[in-house]
Amino acid sequence: MKFDILTLFPGMFSGPFDESIINRAKARQLIDISLHNIRDWATDKHQTADDAPYGGGAGMVMKAGPLASCIESVKARHPASTVVLTSPQGRRLTHSVALELVHSSGLIIVCGRYEGIDERIRSIYAEDDISLGDFVLSGGEIAAMAIVDSVTRLIPGALGSNESAETDSFGDGLLEYPHYTRPPEFNGMIVPEALLSGNHELIRKWRRKESLRKTRSLRPDLLSQVTLTREDRNMLAEIEQEEACVL
Amino acid sequence: MKFDILTLFPGMFSGPFDESIINRAKARQLIDISLHNIRDWATDKHQTADDAPYGGGAGMVMKAGPLASCIESVKARHPASTVVLTSPQGRRLTHSVALELVHSSGLIIVCGRYEGIDERIRSIYAEDDISLGDFVLSGGEIAAMAIVDSVTRLIPGALGSNESAETDSFGDGLLEYPHYTRPPEFNGMIVPEALLSGNHELIRKWRRKESLRKTRSLRPDLLSQVTLTREDRNMLAEIEQEEACVL
Repeated sequence: MKFDILTLFPGMFSGPFDESIINRAKARQLIDISLHNIRDWATDKHQTADDAPYGGGAGMVMKAGPLASCIESVKARHPASTVVLTSPQGRRLTHSVALELVHSSGLIIVCGRYEGIDERIRSIYAEDDISLGDFVLSGGEIAAMAIVDSVTRLIPGALGSNESAETDSFGDGLLEYPHYTRPPEFNGMIVPEALLSGNHELIRKWRRKESLRKTRSLRPDLLSQVTLTREDRNMLAEIEQEEACVL
Repeated sequence: MKFDILTLFPGMFSGPFDESIINRAKARQLIDISLHNIRDWATDKHQTADDAPYGGGAGMVMKAGPLASCIESVKARHPASTVVLTSPQGRRLTHSVALELVHSSGLIIVCGRYEGIDERIRSIYAEDDISLGDFVLSGGEIAAMAIVDSVTRLIPGALGSNESAETDSFGDGLLEYPHYTRPPEFNGMIVPEALLSGNHELIRKWRRKESLRKTRSLRPDLLSQVTLTREDRNMLAEIEQEEACVL
């Protein structure tokens, strides 16, 4: 999968893309990432990529010209890639959006900076617009990292032996169950007995129930979006009784 | 403000924290960022920071010991700082969460990796838990970057002349109005007349109306969370009529 990232700050990506899963996916040629400095497409001698907003006010706006030339140059090389803006008004990145994006042949991710990009770029080129959430970042670069990371880990072969996507949160629509590793006792806190039992069915049930418990307590909205089995409903009833007893 | 970041991949932060607003805020001594490699607190000769999960299954879990020593060492130096986990089960990062965090004296951000951290670390040390959204990242590092960036830009003096927080999306609870800069015509698309008028009241009204229009079209849920003025309600009625005519 091809990622083209259009940014005024290509240096921001040197660390994040040179470690761990992204680095391994690059080495295995599962993904290919190219960084494009939008400033290189500016035509004046100062390489101006931003200018004051029409109508006045604070901040600067990214100029249409350099951005358009940059997008067109990249799109000419990868015509099947999707042009994705990163902005707070985009659709929110979720596990299902990542599952959708992993099927594109490539993403051309435009990182906005300052007050944002000239609106005409959105009208002409944007095929998708993605937001990390209702907060403001200094630019789209961190959002681009999140998109590349969350999508790359869904490509078969991208995860190493230390990682696994199968039990991740949202994989089955619920929050993940709690994890424990050695030692069995830490600061007086012991590992739940079921996990030490060696009984696979007991372990499976404990994990499912704790996954339901976390989701019920922290994200009850997710419970209404999944199809619960009879076993799930029984476990939820047990949890409700248990929590009532604690009070 | 003091940021301590606990990670297995400190190299990931070299680019993101050395550019733009974060870099300037460091130079102005508005923030101070320390990276701590959790592996340095492992006590065995292989510096093991992860181990197989109790109960079996794929993936690895971050061990409680090295993490606990790392957190305690940092917390001893900055006792007033808040220990923040980054995980999909945390509360979601929003503009108002960032506004809350900017008032802490410091944040100790723990970046989980692999399947996650030993649950006992959460029970003992976690004072907050923050999620970027319903998607899975390979680790908490990109979430930590988003927290540092969204919080830092709210510190007075952190933004330069090219940036402004006052008109950002969510600053007033709405999405931002569209931006334009020179040239007045690009690819046959012209800048809206009001913005070229030089009439401040006309410009203010145009921007407010377009901000309401974007929010109504893309994020109607936000409209119900803000207090609308009589002017806002009139503008929304106009927008409704205009959109009906287009259909």
